[in-house]
Amino acid sequence: MTVVISSITDLRQRLLPVRRDGKTVGLVPTMGALHLGHRRLIELARRENDTVVVTVFVNPTQFDRNADLQGYPRTLEDDVAICREAGVDFVFAPDSAEMYPPGGQLAWVDVPALTEHLCGPARPGHFRGVATVVMKLFQIVQADRAYFGEKDAQQLAVIRRMVRDLNVPVEIAPVQTVREPDGLAMSSRNRRLTAEDRKTATTLSQALFTAEAIVRGGERSVDRVQAAVLPLFHRHPQIRLEYFSIVDAETLTPVETIDRPVLIAGAMWLGATRLIDNVMIAPV
Amino acid sequence: MTVVISSITDLRQRLLPVRRDGKTVGLVPTMGALHLGHRRLIELARRENDTVVVTVFVNPTQFDRNADLQGYPRTLEDDVAICREAGVDFVFAPDSAEMYPPGGQLAWVDVPALTEHLCGPARPGHFRGVATVVMKLFQIVQADRAYFGEKDAQQLAVIRRMVRDLNVPVEIAPVQTVREPDGLAMSSRNRRLTAEDRKTATTLSQALFTAEAIVRGGERSVDRVQAAVLPLFHRHPQIRLEYFSIVDAETLTPVETIDRPVLIAGAMWLGATRLIDNVMIAPV
Repeated sequence: MTVVISSITDLRQRLLPVRRDGKTVGLVPTMGALHLGHRRLIELARRENDTVVVTVFVNPTQFDRNADLQGYPRTLEDDVAICREAGVDFVFAPDSAEMYPPGGQLAWVDVPALTEHLCGPARPGHFRGVATVVMKLFQIVQADRAYFGEKDAQQLAVIRRMVRDLNVPVEIAPVQTVREPDGLAMSSRNRRLTAEDRKTATTLSQALFTAEAIVRGGERSVDRVQAAVLPLFHRHPQIRLEYFSIVDAETLTPVETIDRPVLIAGAMWLGATRLIDNVMIAPV
Repeated sequence: MTVVISSITDLRQRLLPVRRDGKTVGLVPTMGALHLGHRRLIELARRENDTVVVTVFVNPTQFDRNADLQGYPRTLEDDVAICREAGVDFVFAPDSAEMYPPGGQLAWVDVPALTEHLCGPARPGHFRGVATVVMKLFQIVQADRAYFGEKDAQQLAVIRRMVRDLNVPVEIAPVQTVREPDGLAMSSRNRRLTAEDRKTATTLSQALFTAEAIVRGGERSVDRVQAAVLPLFHRHPQIRLEYFSIVDAETLTPVETIDRPVLIAGAMWLGATRLIDNVMIAPV
């Protein structure tokens, strides 16, 4: 039976006997609008833990544009139905005042060194908001394992580093990006694309796969990979490319030569919708 | 029996059965050089919890001056003896590499809004270092209660706000400042004073008590309280006053009129030693 909970106190109360019995807890933090990517996270959590908590919270402190926050899809009923079907024990769906009570948020968690590149520059405050709300959820749920998609690679790096550096007693489980048949990475924001833009959206994953193939073919120069791939974006005037970068997989700082594990990552706009995607590659 | 532990893994291992048996854990975070003020914290922790953990760690990330870090008194043997006598279960005394492993600290906890006044401006990074190491200790020990002295009022405010805003499942127990017979607040730094400076050091508590008496007598103007008190410092040319402030007890921002609970706090230097002290007062 899936229980939907909106209060922190209630959730803690429900989890007390779980922990007292020595049962494990798996946490899947989401902003709702669940898709197959989330489903994969939940399936894994279900398989590896006695109790599964899915949180559904559109976190205001991680939005750098108010229009994006307002327009973010909210589908709680469908989300709960998906959780029920997947055998989730608790859906935690607090409102903003429950997570950020009156008086405001003064304490923040931040990993500034990992947010200087990729999505960081274009989204000031975003990763501070992510790190802070995820830390709050970790403290509320006290899970044994928490599941995050690799699609949000920089977010995953920030959270892993936060857990490591702040000694948070939780195991971070990264989960492979789930893609549509044509390669587009699953994202709650995809449902905001027009039919026309939906077709063009595959350019991002195609560019990433192309870059990956070039690197696997032996190319080690970032400049040459970029030169080969960027024209794919330029073919579509409706695409506004924010970045297409190759960075050290751990420090997320740009490299010139691919001589270590790297993250190839891109962000692009179609109309008012921003899409991100990435591939990780370790050259041999 | 008091067990001294230097590894995070060992400490967690030792605390597993404690928690499994539903026993409570009290945490007293210290930088060592234990004095009667710490003893009071430990006594309270001992009374209110099944298991008591005292941490002894001179945290490098909270020192803004390297000379202060180098010169900070280190007396681990004496500290352990005091803990043994007080019935402490575990003394956790890690080295720097255990708390800050190679690769450096990239994730930080900060409460910037509470560090704009009092000690904040003169000690850049100090409270970020404090909040971060205390968060690390909270995650390592997962105590039910943690004990902090009111002498470090701004630190206490930062930690309380961090716990509230990040939903950390620990109860913060503030403990009254312990004073020498002549009023000087107990501090590990007192032992670095010359005999001459030790006498002059009482000026700070005397000024605070004077201000408190003036406010209790009905004075509500911060300017007039300051005008009455500041000459006490000016009498001693060897004192370098850093600040003597009256701030809102919760937001730690300066007030002009004492019409709510306030913190009267000061910091002054005697030679290379910096002393702080405060009194809290709620006008009726």
